[in-house]
Amino acid sequence: MHADSAIEVTVTPARMGKVPLENAKEKKTEFSLVRVKSTWKRTRGTKDNMDRADCVSDAKIYESITEQGTSWTVVSPIVFTYKVTETHNLLDPCNDTLLLGQITDPQQVEDMRKSSKPLKRFIVVDQEVYKIYGSKLTEYLEANNVLYKILALPTTEENKSMDIALKIIEEVNNFSLDRRKEPIIAMGGGVCLDIVGLAASLYRRRTPYIRVPTTLLSYIDASVGAKTGVNFANCKNKLGAYVPPVAVFLDLSFIQTIPRRHISNGLAEMLKMALMKHRGLFELLEKHGLMLLDTKFQTDKSIDGHNRLQAASRATRLAITTMLEELAPNLWEDDLNRLVDFGHLISPALEMKVLPSLLHEEEKQRIISCMVGLELPVWHEGFTMELIQKSLQDRLKHSGGLFRMPLPVGLGQADIFNDTSYETLHRAYEKWRDELSISHCTSSIRSVKL
Amino acid sequence: MHADSAIEVTVTPARMGKVPLENAKEKKTEFSLVRVKSTWKRTRGTKDNMDRADCVSDAKIYESITEQGTSWTVVSPIVFTYKVTETHNLLDPCNDTLLLGQITDPQQVEDMRKSSKPLKRFIVVDQEVYKIYGSKLTEYLEANNVLYKILALPTTEENKSMDIALKIIEEVNNFSLDRRKEPIIAMGGGVCLDIVGLAASLYRRRTPYIRVPTTLLSYIDASVGAKTGVNFANCKNKLGAYVPPVAVFLDLSFIQTIPRRHISNGLAEMLKMALMKHRGLFELLEKHGLMLLDTKFQTDKSIDGHNRLQAASRATRLAITTMLEELAPNLWEDDLNRLVDFGHLISPALEMKVLPSLLHEEEKQRIISCMVGLELPVWHEGFTMELIQKSLQDRLKHSGGLFRMPLPVGLGQADIFNDTSYETLHRAYEKWRDELSISHCTSSIRSVKL
Repeated sequence: MHADSAIEVTVTPARMGKVPLENAKEKKTEFSLVRVKSTWKRTRGTKDNMDRADCVSDAKIYESITEQGTSWTVVSPIVFTYKVTETHNLLDPCNDTLLLGQITDPQQVEDMRKSSKPLKRFIVVDQEVYKIYGSKLTEYLEANNVLYKILALPTTEENKSMDIALKIIEEVNNFSLDRRKEPIIAMGGGVCLDIVGLAASLYRRRTPYIRVPTTLLSYIDASVGAKTGVNFANCKNKLGAYVPPVAVFLDLSFIQTIPRRHISNGLAEMLKMALMKHRGLFELLEKHGLMLLDTKFQTDKSIDGHNRLQAASRATRLAITTMLEELAPNLWEDDLNRLVDFGHLISPALEMKVLPSLLHEEEKQRIISCMVGLELPVWHEGFTMELIQKSLQDRLKHSGGLFRMPLPVGLGQADIFNDTSYETLHRAYEKWRDELSISHCTSSIRSVKL
Repeated sequence: MHADSAIEVTVTPARMGKVPLENAKEKKTEFSLVRVKSTWKRTRGTKDNMDRADCVSDAKIYESITEQGTSWTVVSPIVFTYKVTETHNLLDPCNDTLLLGQITDPQQVEDMRKSSKPLKRFIVVDQEVYKIYGSKLTEYLEANNVLYKILALPTTEENKSMDIALKIIEEVNNFSLDRRKEPIIAMGGGVCLDIVGLAASLYRRRTPYIRVPTTLLSYIDASVGAKTGVNFANCKNKLGAYVPPVAVFLDLSFIQTIPRRHISNGLAEMLKMALMKHRGLFELLEKHGLMLLDTKFQTDKSIDGHNRLQAASRATRLAITTMLEELAPNLWEDDLNRLVDFGHLISPALEMKVLPSLLHEEEKQRIISCMVGLELPVWHEGFTMELIQKSLQDRLKHSGGLFRMPLPVGLGQADIFNDTSYETLHRAYEKWRDELSISHCTSSIRSVKL
C-alpha cells in the first residue's frame, strides 16, 4: 500500500507468525566499560578488572546472542552542565562575566585574567538590541582587548528560519573559532537565542554558546532550558535541537528598553509558573505586578527603589527556579507530561477555566484580576470552539494519544489531566466567553480593574 | 580591537582586577529533584523528602548566592539507548526486523504483530541501492501492509549538504509521521546514513531513525555510532549532531552488490581496529582477508561456505565490538583522546610508521603485507611533507593544543602520543617513501604479495 493510495485498505494479518525477535536460546551478557591506558575494554565487571582500570565509564553494552545473530544494546549517558548567572551591568568594561563567566574552575578564571593573550568572541545580536546597546558592546569588547566579530541580525519570528541559522554558521566559519574554548554569544530575545543556539549546536556537531536574554520573556523562559529551534514549513520551531548553552547571563537592566506590552508577555509567563507551582510568586505578582510593569523591573537608590529591587529580584528568581525545577529532570522532553506546557494546548485563560470545580470561585477571580492588572488579554474574538477542537486533535496526534493537559488545581498547585471531555471544554468555553468577552462584557471582574 | 584589524596589538592588562566571579561570602546549596504527583520540586535531599517522592531524578541543581546575585548550575544526564542487531534476509517479507526490531519490549512486539493497524514508515534509500533493491523493498512493505513513502536520493559525497537534509525533512513533514512511534529508515552507505541521521535529529528536535548500512564500511563504522552530518563550506561533516539511531539492522547480504574496491575500504577500517585493539582480528584478516574480499563476505551451503561464514561473521563482529567499546563511553566525543581516530591525523600508513621503534620490524612487515593483500594502497604520490605539516597544524588548532596521535605499539595494542617531533615525522616519511613508493620501488615487502 503506497502512501499516495487510499488509507482504507483490506487488512491482512501479514505481521503474524514471523521470525521471533527474542529467542529461547538467547545468551545475554552485560558489559561495563573500563579504560586501561588509552584503550577502552568491555568487561563483565569483575572486581579484578575494575580495580585495574584507570577509569570506569557510566556506559554499558548489553550483548545478546541467538541463532539469528548477535545484537548489542548500547546505553550511554551524556551529562549536560550549564550555568545560569545573575549579574549587574553586564556591559560595564570592569565586569568580565560576559567573557569568563562560563568557566567553572576558579583557577582557570584567574589564569585567564592574568593572561595577555586576546580573547576571541563571535557575537550575534538582535538588530534592535544592537541599535540601543551596539556602541556599549563595542566599547566593552575593545576595552577588554577582545578580537571580535559582531553580527547584528533581524531576529524576528518571520526570519526564524534555517537560512538565517546557516548565515550565522557561515560567518562563524569565516571567523575561525576554537570550538572548544571560544563560545558564540547570543544577545537578544527568545527568537535570537533559539536561532543562535541551533546554529551553534550544528556547527562542528556542537560549539559552546552563551545566552544573554534582553527581554523579560526570554530572561525567564527561552534562556534557561536546552531547546533551540527555527520555524519550517509554516510550523513554529519545527527544526531544532536539545543542546543547552554553556552559560546564561542574566542582567535585568536590558528590560528597561523593551516596550510595555512585551513586559506584560513576560509577566504572563511568570504568572503561569506561579499558578502551576508557586503560590508565593502569585501573591507577589498580585501585589507588585503593576509596579513591576510600570517600572520595567528597574530600581534606583531610594528606599522605594530598594523595595522595587526586592520584588523584581524575588519575582524573577522564583520564576527561574520553578522553571529549572521542571526543565532539569526533563531536559530532552522525554517525559511528555510537562506542567510548563500549561497554555500550550489551547490557551492559558481557557485551560484555567476548563475545570472550574478545581479552583474556588474566589481564587479564580483573583487570578483574572491579576491578569487584568498585568495588562494581559483574557479574551480574543478569534477564539472559537472549532479552533479548540483542532488544537485537541493535534495534541492527541503528537502526544502519544493522551491530552496531557496541565491545569492548576489551586493557587500554585497543578496536575495533568487526560480525561477532560469535549463537553466539559465546551461548557468552560461558554462560561469564559460570557464572563470575559468584550462583546458580552457582563463581567464584574473586568470592571474591577479597568 | 576589531577582528578585521591587525591581530598584533599593544596588550593592556585590561582583564586584571575585575569584579571577582567567586565570592568569599558565597552560599552554596545542592538540590536534588523529586516528583510528587505531576510536579517536580527541588529538595535538599533529606530522607523524608526523598521517601515521599514518586520519582527521583538523576539531575541536580546547584545554587550559589553571593552579593553579585544568584547563580544556578544545572547538571542533567540524558541517557541514549540504541540497538545494533545482526539479521539475515532483512527484506524477506517474513522477517519483521525492519519494522519492529527497534522495539525493546517483547510484549509490545507481540501486540504489534497481532494488531491489524497498518504501520507507517518513511524510508530514504540511496539511489544506487534503490536500483538494486527497490522492487524487493517495495514488495516487502506491500506484503507487510505498510503505509509507506520511499525517497530515493543520490547520496554522494558531493550532495552531502544541508539542502538534501532539508529536502528529506520537507518530504517527512508532508508524509506526517507520529514522531514518537514511526521511525524514519535510512538505507545506504555512510553518506546516506549521515544525512538522514541529521535530518531526523533536526525534525521536531529529534525524530527516531533506523540505520540499514549497505556497504561494508558503513556496516562496521558509520552505522554503530551517534554521529550524523553533512558537508558545509567545503569541509567534511562541518554540520551535524550526536544523536544515535534507535536501531541499526545489519545484513551482510547487501555487501554482495558493492564494488570490490569498496570492500577494500571496509577492510581498511577493520584493519585499523585490529591494529589498535585486537590482535586476533588482525590474524583473521591476515589469513582470510583476501578470501573475504573475493567472496564479498558471502557464503553458501557448502563446507567451504560454512568456513567463510565463520570468518565473515567473526571479522565483522570483532570490528563492531571493538568499535562499540571505544564509542559507547565517548558518544559525544567529549574526550579528545580517541583511538578510533588513528589515521585521521595524517594517514594510517604514515602514522603507523611514525614511531617504527614501537613495532618490531617483523610485525610492521606483516601489517604491510596484509594491507597489500587487502588491495589497500600503501603510498600516494600526492602525499608530501608540506601536507603533513599542514595536517599537524590543523590538529593542534582543533584538538586543544595537543597532537593526540593514536598509534599502534604492537599488533592489537595502541597508545596516544603528544610528543612526536616534526623531525621524527620527517624521518618516518622518508623511510616510508623509500620502502613503499612506486617511484622508489625498492621494497621487498611489496614484491612479496604483488
